[in-house]
Amino acid sequence: MLALITKIEYVAKGSRARRLSRSGRRAALLLRKLDTDMVLIVQKYGGTSVADLARIKEVARRVKREVDAGNEVAVVVSAMAGATDGLVAWARATCEEDAGSEYDVVVSSGEQVTAGLLALALQDLGVAARSWLGWQVPVRTDGVHGKARIAAIEIGAIARRLKAGEIAVVAGFQGIDGQGRITTLGRGGSDTSAVALAAALGADRCEIFTDVDGVYTSDPRIVAKARKLSRITYEEMLELASLGAKVLQTRSVAMAMNHRVRLLVRSSFNEAAGTLVVDEDEIVEKEVVSGIAYDHEAKITLRKVADRPGVAAAIFGPLAEHAINVDMIVQNISEDGVTADLTFTVAQADLDRAVAVLEECRPLLGFTALTPDSNVVKISVIGVGMRSHPGVAQTMFRTLADKGINIQVISTSEIKVSVLIAAEYTELALRALHTAYGLDRAG
Amino acid sequence: MLALITKIEYVAKGSRARRLSRSGRRAALLLRKLDTDMVLIVQKYGGTSVADLARIKEVARRVKREVDAGNEVAVVVSAMAGATDGLVAWARATCEEDAGSEYDVVVSSGEQVTAGLLALALQDLGVAARSWLGWQVPVRTDGVHGKARIAAIEIGAIARRLKAGEIAVVAGFQGIDGQGRITTLGRGGSDTSAVALAAALGADRCEIFTDVDGVYTSDPRIVAKARKLSRITYEEMLELASLGAKVLQTRSVAMAMNHRVRLLVRSSFNEAAGTLVVDEDEIVEKEVVSGIAYDHEAKITLRKVADRPGVAAAIFGPLAEHAINVDMIVQNISEDGVTADLTFTVAQADLDRAVAVLEECRPLLGFTALTPDSNVVKISVIGVGMRSHPGVAQTMFRTLADKGINIQVISTSEIKVSVLIAAEYTELALRALHTAYGLDRAG
Repeated sequence: MLALITKIEYVAKGSRARRLSRSGRRAALLLRKLDTDMVLIVQKYGGTSVADLARIKEVARRVKREVDAGNEVAVVVSAMAGATDGLVAWARATCEEDAGSEYDVVVSSGEQVTAGLLALALQDLGVAARSWLGWQVPVRTDGVHGKARIAAIEIGAIARRLKAGEIAVVAGFQGIDGQGRITTLGRGGSDTSAVALAAALGADRCEIFTDVDGVYTSDPRIVAKARKLSRITYEEMLELASLGAKVLQTRSVAMAMNHRVRLLVRSSFNEAAGTLVVDEDEIVEKEVVSGIAYDHEAKITLRKVADRPGVAAAIFGPLAEHAINVDMIVQNISEDGVTADLTFTVAQADLDRAVAVLEECRPLLGFTALTPDSNVVKISVIGVGMRSHPGVAQTMFRTLADKGINIQVISTSEIKVSVLIAAEYTELALRALHTAYGLDRAG
Repeated sequence: MLALITKIEYVAKGSRARRLSRSGRRAALLLRKLDTDMVLIVQKYGGTSVADLARIKEVARRVKREVDAGNEVAVVVSAMAGATDGLVAWARATCEEDAGSEYDVVVSSGEQVTAGLLALALQDLGVAARSWLGWQVPVRTDGVHGKARIAAIEIGAIARRLKAGEIAVVAGFQGIDGQGRITTLGRGGSDTSAVALAAALGADRCEIFTDVDGVYTSDPRIVAKARKLSRITYEEMLELASLGAKVLQTRSVAMAMNHRVRLLVRSSFNEAAGTLVVDEDEIVEKEVVSGIAYDHEAKITLRKVADRPGVAAAIFGPLAEHAINVDMIVQNISEDGVTADLTFTVAQADLDRAVAVLEECRPLLGFTALTPDSNVVKISVIGVGMRSHPGVAQTMFRTLADKGINIQVISTSEIKVSVLIAAEYTELALRALHTAYGLDRAG
């Protein structure tokens, strides 16, 4: 019993709470449940869920229902839809240089407004609530303004107030660096704020409220027969998020996986059950493929690159220095049998910069031609079942071939297969693959 | 020399800096000047001066001119014009109760945005600058949310950065209370932020930039012949501010007077010289009357109040409990020779609440009639010269009588005479008095 109590104190100490071991957290949870039978939930509401005062009041009613059910609730909020875009535009129009720290001062005000308003809306319903800004919690981050990473969340004060029955309304997306300056976590950072807070508090679950009612087998706007998944594994969700599904920020999923935070993705606009993101062992019947994602990319082909050691580093080094991420890469021997042809993909937004960087290095790299192509799309099928079911890639290749779709680049990992195809085939490929893997909704 | 250095350190220590004695501050200034010959200026820009990005860039250019002239500059900013009104409306629409602390979280975000944007605009001009929010300085206040009072400004960090050549852009209107919650100082609070910062830093002067180019002898929108004053005393400015002139917040003038901060009121829209608010001994030729102010008020008359000890307390006590300020008061014996008639004024916005409070107390107070009147205006003539020139009040009474204007209530202080008249005579009274006191601009 003493050991358990020590671990509870460890949670409350805060700054080291994120380092709490999985077993320690489970022990802490166990004791809390034995003690009070109370559930601690972290809820995160995105921009469309708090788009205006009516929506904020609706969120307050939803939070109150959890309170009335006897649960402790910490709420993480985004800026009201459109607010961040407006603030970013102002900051960019004011200073041409990328002046990160002041950018963060301006942009973080959006979440501050929502946090204050939601606390007011809860008080208006008679619910004890207070707002917590990043520096008040505090959420400690590194000093990389505009895309800071959370180093620690000191939960001591929040945990005491939650325990006393007060709702914590936490401004998402923001923290404070070692110099006491405001930082922001990058686009979608409120998801990460919520998961980090849930991990630090040892919450029973983290509910991500958005404007879609869960994670689908594919984009329902394109694939009419897409089904909502009731459960998905962290690994699959992580691949989906990084392969183009917009429902959760990649970093937040990785953090949830590392800290085993049970994530529930659901809509704030209806009462649908949502999708639970959990450990693989919590899913009894695993599908071979759970989802099919797509992401528009841009492709660059370099012809007749000298085929000698170090040439790949000479090409991708300068791109990395310019913060251009390279995704898929394929290298073939050229028709001359001596040099190599190299094809790789980058984000569409980075294409022009990537071409400029490469042209600058041309004398060094000695390629004979550079062909950019921004009309490509990466289609990915994802599923933990692939580990035990061979033939998933083969099904993909055959399905696309049957539709006359040429595959330009292939890349695979343990639980996904991605192919690059011409963008005009996006809808055709998604629907054909959805059917081929047996994902279509009945009826 | 040692004593002087000790006093510099005292300034730098911050939290006690406001308590610095006048002689200590002068010694500190003296040493700084001997040391560097550098001038330290605090500039404050109000909402219309930072109304949009173009205005903020214009302010940045103005600040840069001072930097180029070799001066140290700390800038205090208000929210962009209209921003605070919008945030207040949101907060009020979200919670019916007056929930001060969250109201302050929402409303203070306006100054945060301006501070970040102005720092960006300065950086864009190549000027080293950073923003300081209330909690970062920190500006310590009491815990009266919505109208907090500044207790101390810890200038240590700001002073070091100023000394290193960096412009400090301070978010006005906001501070932090003992619990680490954001507080706001009430409407016009950025003036107070600026004066308090100037006092704490021992600034050479505090420039208040607004949309008028100084303090006028009367409201130029009504009195066409009103003149801009080049200098005015603290005492006169204090009376003008509290008697209806909107150019400066009353509390900021009182603070400037107490700490002998040289205030310069000027326009950010032109290069006019502005009005300097200074000690009486800095003004060589004092006018008998420097200004004529007006303020719309509401009048309440209670008939046949029992004329016994304690009745005034019984009337004004409940009003004070409801935070209703009473201004002018006059008491006469009623026509019955036994009871008293009581007339007093309150702010127009408080009239309905005042009537309700009094009607509730009617059984106790025993008045026979309550007559509210919201069509009254208080006209005040102000001037330190009154102390040595008798007959100022007499000129006022005769001038108004000549125009057939009835005086309803009179109140006087050492440097002002106020009368209450029917609101319809406002323009007539202001112009006649302006001429009578010889204030009219030539031509």
